[in-house]
Amino acid sequence: MLRFCLIGTGRAGLVHAANIDRRIKDAQLIALCDADPGALRRAAAECSAGRQYLDYREAVRDPRVDAVIVATPAFLHREIACEAAAQGKHIFLEKPMALSVAECEDINAAAAQAGVTLQIGFMRRFDAAYVQTKEILESGELGPVMIIKSTGRGPGLPPPWIYDLSKSNGMLAEVNSHDFDSVRWLVGSEIARLYAEAANLKCDDARDRYPDFYDNAVVVLRFANAALGSIDGTCPAEYGYDARVEVLCEKGALFLGSVQDRGVSRVTCDGNVTTQAVESWRSLFREAYIGEIEHFISCVEQQTTPRATGLDGLKAVEAVAAANASITSGEPVTLEAVRRT
Amino acid sequence: MLRFCLIGTGRAGLVHAANIDRRIKDAQLIALCDADPGALRRAAAECSAGRQYLDYREAVRDPRVDAVIVATPAFLHREIACEAAAQGKHIFLEKPMALSVAECEDINAAAAQAGVTLQIGFMRRFDAAYVQTKEILESGELGPVMIIKSTGRGPGLPPPWIYDLSKSNGMLAEVNSHDFDSVRWLVGSEIARLYAEAANLKCDDARDRYPDFYDNAVVVLRFANAALGSIDGTCPAEYGYDARVEVLCEKGALFLGSVQDRGVSRVTCDGNVTTQAVESWRSLFREAYIGEIEHFISCVEQQTTPRATGLDGLKAVEAVAAANASITSGEPVTLEAVRRT
Amino acid sequence: MLRFCLIGTGRAGLVHAANIDRRIKDAQLIALCDADPGALRRAAAECSAGRQYLDYREAVRDPRVDAVIVATPAFLHREIACEAAAQGKHIFLEKPMALSVAECEDINAAAAQAGVTLQIGFMRRFDAAYVQTKEILESGELGPVMIIKSTGRGPGLPPPWIYDLSKSNGMLAEVNSHDFDSVRWLVGSEIARLYAEAANLKCDDARDRYPDFYDNAVVVLRFANAALGSIDGTCPAEYGYDARVEVLCEKGALFLGSVQDRGVSRVTCDGNVTTQAVESWRSLFREAYIGEIEHFISCVEQQTTPRATGLDGLKAVEAVAAANASITSGEPVTLEAVRRT
Amino acid sequence: MLRFCLIGTGRAGLVHAANIDRRIKDAQLIALCDADPGALRRAAAECSAGRQYLDYREAVRDPRVDAVIVATPAFLHREIACEAAAQGKHIFLEKPMALSVAECEDINAAAAQAGVTLQIGFMRRFDAAYVQTKEILESGELGPVMIIKSTGRGPGLPPPWIYDLSKSNGMLAEVNSHDFDSVRWLVGSEIARLYAEAANLKCDDARDRYPDFYDNAVVVLRFANAALGSIDGTCPAEYGYDARVEVLCEKGALFLGSVQDRGVSRVTCDGNVTTQAVESWRSLFREAYIGEIEHFISCVEQQTTPRATGLDGLKAVEAVAAANASITSGEPVTLEAVRRT
Repeated sequence: MLRFCLIGTGRAGLVHAANIDRRIKDAQLIALCDADPGALRRAAAECSAGRQYLDYREAVRDPRVDAVIVATPAFLHREIACEAAAQGKHIFLEKPMALSVAECEDINAAAAQAGVTLQIGFMRRFDAAYVQTKEILESGELGPVMIIKSTGRGPGLPPPWIYDLSKSNGMLAEVNSHDFDSVRWLVGSEIARLYAEAANLKCDDARDRYPDFYDNAVVVLRFANAALGSIDGTCPAEYGYDARVEVLCEKGALFLGSVQDRGVSRVTCDGNVTTQAVESWRSLFREAYIGEIEHFISCVEQQTTPRATGLDGLKAVEAVAAANASITSGEPVTLEAVRRT
Repeated sequence: MLRFCLIGTGRAGLVHAANIDRRIKDAQLIALCDADPGALRRAAAECSAGRQYLDYREAVRDPRVDAVIVATPAFLHREIACEAAAQGKHIFLEKPMALSVAECEDINAAAAQAGVTLQIGFMRRFDAAYVQTKEILESGELGPVMIIKSTGRGPGLPPPWIYDLSKSNGMLAEVNSHDFDSVRWLVGSEIARLYAEAANLKCDDARDRYPDFYDNAVVVLRFANAALGSIDGTCPAEYGYDARVEVLCEKGALFLGSVQDRGVSRVTCDGNVTTQAVESWRSLFREAYIGEIEHFISCVEQQTTPRATGLDGLKAVEAVAAANASITSGEPVTLEAVRRT
Repeated sequence: MLRFCLIGTGRAGLVHAANIDRRIKDAQLIALCDADPGALRRAAAECSAGRQYLDYREAVRDPRVDAVIVATPAFLHREIACEAAAQGKHIFLEKPMALSVAECEDINAAAAQAGVTLQIGFMRRFDAAYVQTKEILESGELGPVMIIKSTGRGPGLPPPWIYDLSKSNGMLAEVNSHDFDSVRWLVGSEIARLYAEAANLKCDDARDRYPDFYDNAVVVLRFANAALGSIDGTCPAEYGYDARVEVLCEKGALFLGSVQDRGVSRVTCDGNVTTQAVESWRSLFREAYIGEIEHFISCVEQQTTPRATGLDGLKAVEAVAAANASITSGEPVTLEAVRRT
Repeated sequence: MLRFCLIGTGRAGLVHAANIDRRIKDAQLIALCDADPGALRRAAAECSAGRQYLDYREAVRDPRVDAVIVATPAFLHREIACEAAAQGKHIFLEKPMALSVAECEDINAAAAQAGVTLQIGFMRRFDAAYVQTKEILESGELGPVMIIKSTGRGPGLPPPWIYDLSKSNGMLAEVNSHDFDSVRWLVGSEIARLYAEAANLKCDDARDRYPDFYDNAVVVLRFANAALGSIDGTCPAEYGYDARVEVLCEKGALFLGSVQDRGVSRVTCDGNVTTQAVESWRSLFREAYIGEIEHFISCVEQQTTPRATGLDGLKAVEAVAAANASITSGEPVTLEAVRRT
């Protein structure tokens, strides 16, 4: 039985809270923490957790807490994660891991020093279709990857703090961290170089104050092993949550994901055949969100390495930084160049 | 070059006329025939055919005509086909072949005696997907058929003369003749026994005058080789034209056809993913309608037996008669019993 | 917190055991019961339940047990359920409810007299797609149902005791009880009359000793409200578990279920595009199996009526009896006639 | 009736020949021309054309010829097209239009001066799904395009002359000309800037002699109207011909094309659900190939402007040139820069 404190009671945080409360037997949510008293109160009403904290420093000192789930905005990740590590708490850290490679390095160092388990919230690595894709690629039956393409679109308006790229690293960080992690994991090779085009095509209200904000981006990738790739991201796409991957290999191709949900399809007198789009990452990755926490618990209990490590988190942050640098400079950017800065 | 006269300028007739005019190089449409002067005039405006006849007896005597396409209501098929045979014309005869087994036998005898080619308009036998299904089943790779199911739904309101089952044999004849022929052809065995349920659920205006009229029917089949099957038919289905077949074999299953057309799919802000239903047999079987006429021309020129013979036409009429008898009696009916009456 | 005893540790039973052990927070599996010591031992190794019983009479007397899940062969349901009711235990009863309408009536009477909650394991009523279908039909937006078709195929060989129809009521009971319940629930009207064709096409070894055994069946249905329908069942279909429903209404149609699982699709050099079939009811209805137990717990705690009552269970048994009578007699059978016998 | 001479009897040329011979009524194929006597002889055996030429200069002087279809390798297009124009022949010119923008300008000037009809073989503009996509986008119902993605993969090995990029402009010209034309046509805006990554991942035998040859490429696009896009191309993909477009708009998205052909789907005992991939552009665009020639005939007869003009051909050549320049330089390239060189 692992006792959790959730730090950050936004949407992703509440998904974890509900899973621990209702679906994961060997875990207990005993505490909540949010700097916003209103959010904390609302979350407490939904959860079984008896303890509430406004200050994460107190939360991570609670001796009854074994592990924290950090689901705050990314610019707070470093200080919270490092403090939690210092207090000997195991850390489940939502993506993006942090705002910069340097911050990621700090977190990794803190966790290593404290000897606590650190897992990044790349839940796609726990989704049955992603796992199956990884297995097929690793089996070699389709030969090496030639081109991988990943599309990641979110349905909702981004919260305003994302407009400020210095605080958020933008949509590529908030939405497409998953895509950067997925393509790297699936190809089994590091991104070597990328070029990105981006535009603000929907968020008129952000244009004046945040001229570098973008809500659409297309990134072309070259991997160290010579494979090519692309990532495209849009938020909000409005029609739903859209996560699809296509992998072209030398001897075939794989297609993962669909715009369509698994629901009923209907045909009406106007001749329209209609199904529902995937509405949310909550429904699409329901089992993966449960699976990653069960995996985290097992890693803590058996002292094994999580499937999504702090290094994986760092690599995704690095790629996002490169893409943002490419958008700013209008030039292709090597990951090596990002690493040197 | 084969010179055709089209007899009956309704919807199916005009599809053949357009194909001969625009898509089939070694054929010429030289004459049209329809007892309705208005229909004849409208058809003439659409076609290249120079000659027009109100009386089929004159049409089939035209010495320039090599072959007739008979696309009139089914109750006229026997007299027209027999007269055309007597005049030495090759006959492409739309389904249903006739109203009764006896009428079919008359037509077959007339064609045999005259030595003319007779082909029934079972265009599904020329559709790539049906042909592929037939080939897979014949290859034996999936083992014997256990259950075959065929759905046939038409989009439009039936013409009023179909209300009178004594003239039309009803929807099972007009719409589902194709299904009866397909299942028999695909299974490679004769229907031995069937039971049918039917209801008039949409056509309120027909209820009083034609109490035995039905617009929905479900038929369960037992084949001579012990396979089972079902056919369901509805007209009008309104949403489009719907032809699907499912074949369950000992070692697998086949699925043929789709409610969806091959068009573009769209997703909109309401989260609906929408494609278009197949609108019409005209679009779905476009190539098959061309193929069956090219096949007919080739059979005439090379004096070979068509893929859909007069016996095939008769067998479908027989099955429809059995289904109508089952609906009337509320009992299962053997095909042998129909043959004896 | 509800404390359960599982009676019958076969496949369906173990699904419930695993769900209570791993996914349902407010429930506890405290006891197992199976007359077969080997099966009991194997089940105990997989579950957390501390207590084991070979005799259901002892199990239902255990004062720590609040509720039983009865997942034995159907011919044992009546005695176990009645005894459990007599001991004041709430009863979750797997389908088919029992072998005859009379047995169902006994169970219903026993539960009513004891005032315990009785729920039948029609998990499809808890599946998101079935629930959505029900809601669309009830909304009236598509008008009344004209034709409903339900296909139910199981992948595995039936256990030998099913060969004996006097003990099992055959495949229509074991596999297609779900279909009979679904069509009745979705249409919102009772089955009035049916006709069934059946054949043993795969199980050669059963043919001599059990000449009335069938592994394929097609049933045509007429509902009290004039809608038509069909059910087809096959076991084993070998390729996987196949549950699909099609509902044609006056103003459109609904399609529920797919042969294909939600996995990755791949295309290989031979030009084959391949996905995986749904492998098992375990994966397809995973959430529904959890949902029905959570619903049962809630019904017990709040003393409300379950979504799948003993009357629903009885009605499915009645329809299966009618279908078996039709197969035996070769005649259509009214449900009223079954009720009278 | 338009009388055609086909110049270049390779694969694309023979598709046109067969269509004119078998499917297009108001056209006649009267002459064939190919510098390779063996190819000419084989083509003559398949076609009805009575006249054969080894030298295109003689072919375009044949007074019975009204129009030429030029389907030779692209490096011959300029001289043939200009000579045909000089002889007053209407010109149907396969893609890519030529090797350079300057060559395209020569062809356009020659056709304009001679007053002959010039149409480029962008058959996708005549495909029902592409036309429907264009109509939906123009209707404005989905709002402006934000991201367009086009995938173009060919099944077969490229002919060896394509290895030499100075002669062929490479795979982006030979295979993806269609994609460059489609995205420009569908978005309704010119490509402003692009960046391309390419690699030779399959054609080992080309690597030494043709180090700049690539068989995989990913191109990211920025349009003049601020929309973003990507094109990816691979040849050979081996599994089939793969043409898909995805258009994300402000209020929804469109999906055009599928890896899957329209054939039968089968499920086998191993649980695989299998359909066939689209095998060839010949099958996928069968109707579009007929449609573009019928359109060309109509443009000649009614002296109207074709749907795919010489300017459209030039713009696609320009974009390919920019992409190849980007691959060579490793930098993003503006179309304006290409125009200036």
